[in-house]
Amino acid sequence: MIDKLIEKIQKTGAPIVVGLDPTMKFVPEHIQKAAFAEKGETLEGAAEAVWLFNKGIIDKTYDLIPAVKPQIAMYEQFGIPGLRAFQKTVDYCREKGLVVIGDIKRGDIGSTSAAYASAHLGRVQVGSSLCAAFDEDFVTVNPYLGSDGVQPFIDVCREEKKGIFILVKTSNPSSGEFQDRQVRTGSAGEDAGGTDSGEKPLYEIVGEKVAEWSSQLMGEKGYSYIGAVVGATYPEQGRALRRVMPKSFILVPGYGAQGGTGKDLIHFFDDNRLGAIVNSSRGIIAAYQNEKYSRFGTYNYADASRQAVIDMITDIDQAFASVGK
Amino acid sequence: MIDKLIEKIQKTGAPIVVGLDPTMKFVPEHIQKAAFAEKGETLEGAAEAVWLFNKGIIDKTYDLIPAVKPQIAMYEQFGIPGLRAFQKTVDYCREKGLVVIGDIKRGDIGSTSAAYASAHLGRVQVGSSLCAAFDEDFVTVNPYLGSDGVQPFIDVCREEKKGIFILVKTSNPSSGEFQDRQVRTGSAGEDAGGTDSGEKPLYEIVGEKVAEWSSQLMGEKGYSYIGAVVGATYPEQGRALRRVMPKSFILVPGYGAQGGTGKDLIHFFDDNRLGAIVNSSRGIIAAYQNEKYSRFGTYNYADASRQAVIDMITDIDQAFASVGK
Repeated sequence: MIDKLIEKIQKTGAPIVVGLDPTMKFVPEHIQKAAFAEKGETLEGAAEAVWLFNKGIIDKTYDLIPAVKPQIAMYEQFGIPGLRAFQKTVDYCREKGLVVIGDIKRGDIGSTSAAYASAHLGRVQVGSSLCAAFDEDFVTVNPYLGSDGVQPFIDVCREEKKGIFILVKTSNPSSGEFQDRQVRTGSAGEDAGGTDSGEKPLYEIVGEKVAEWSSQLMGEKGYSYIGAVVGATYPEQGRALRRVMPKSFILVPGYGAQGGTGKDLIHFFDDNRLGAIVNSSRGIIAAYQNEKYSRFGTYNYADASRQAVIDMITDIDQAFASVGK
Repeated sequence: MIDKLIEKIQKTGAPIVVGLDPTMKFVPEHIQKAAFAEKGETLEGAAEAVWLFNKGIIDKTYDLIPAVKPQIAMYEQFGIPGLRAFQKTVDYCREKGLVVIGDIKRGDIGSTSAAYASAHLGRVQVGSSLCAAFDEDFVTVNPYLGSDGVQPFIDVCREEKKGIFILVKTSNPSSGEFQDRQVRTGSAGEDAGGTDSGEKPLYEIVGEKVAEWSSQLMGEKGYSYIGAVVGATYPEQGRALRRVMPKSFILVPGYGAQGGTGKDLIHFFDDNRLGAIVNSSRGIIAAYQNEKYSRFGTYNYADASRQAVIDMITDIDQAFASVGK
């Protein structure tokens, strides 16, 4: 699947992923009204609105982009109907040939992580049948519980030829609270009595572990099925992490609405403009609410999204050009 | 809700929670057969089997215990039908008067964490209506993303009088990989130039942060709505963390099948036998598969679970007695 992602990036010339994170305040009123008229002001109504909103954007952008990243929380808040809209969105995007990155940030231990991996990337045994629950191509994974929590995902990736992106350095303002902590290098655990007095930030320790995990499962184009999440909002840390994880594809959130710009991203990429994929959510899906795109109007919200995608590709292209990549 | 949990613990004399983590291999064949006959070897069939299995156990144990902890991964693996079984289980347990701890280990940033919090503890605005998606009393939360990720849960807890348990030191073998890392104390971040040369394990840093969060939202019985998860399998770390977070109720996994015993738990409790709640999943719900309870037979699996609950209460009671608590 990492190879498919790379192919699609090369074909579209767009190392970007559209974050399908629909909160109700992004959904144009005419869509809300239509959905509520049919299903009421209920979870079903909200889910229908979200689905119609997504479909509009997908139909207007799928030819320009390699991938989408639905954020499951935005669907989970609408309960079972919301999760059905998530599933419908995933399936529809795959039909359209898009690579789907489920932003689920799951992570647990042993058989529980295995259950999440089966739920989103694999299949589950029911009697003598194998059934698929949700069916994304990649998911995001939280590493706080250590290898026990991550390995079951890697095992399912191997079997299904799918991938994961592991949180290393997130894009939010308080990500440093734990992730930037200076950690003594040497062995972990209370018994660690090493004499190594070096120090590294925790995100780098996690990055080193990701590099190890990545090496377990390489694709055919130089990158691993096991990637990382590193926010655009921390370019210096990003530069360091790119070196620490040379074979890990990096999913980069934080572009646009969160403050990252094209030039903050360049260091994530190799000389072939590969190695990273940049996410924008609000900046694309709610573009029509931005003054810059207000000419499209509410009814043509998806055309505004298309234009925002084109502009994002140009911004990143120019940033590449400015450094001769 | 923390006050309700404490009341229920005092009333039952049982500081325990039954983990409703039904994998298919725990579900007796006669239940699987009945469910598959009705719904086929499908996700629907699996979900039905899981629900029937749960209901049997709940009906035979609800009078002995204060709380249950369904692990959502075990339901999510069966897709939408599985999540419907999760919801049915949550609702049924609440009807039976049980406190429900959703073991969801969610955690994201800002509005995304807020969406998870609404999904599981709160309500979501749809047009002019407020709708509830899932409706647990507590959930577990992953802290890796920092305050941005946790605060939205605390805000919803305040509004809804519900609670969370934040992962601090998990029970799994590799939990130390990141959680036990020795971290330089002083301020975080790359700019930290403090002269403080002290060191603490990361779990203690997280524990200190949990103590801070806990102080934001106290119940009326001396404990906070904001608690912590600390595994029974690491008693020494548990002892340290109990001191670091004196007002945080501690959810303790790792008892029984994972190796923790009654005496490993005592230090989590105060002199009133409060301050912690011990989870057992497999040891209770799959008790009938354990030789110790094989006399009950497969058909009476729920009676085996009841006996296992009684034995667990006795084990913890004896441990209390042995130290005069």
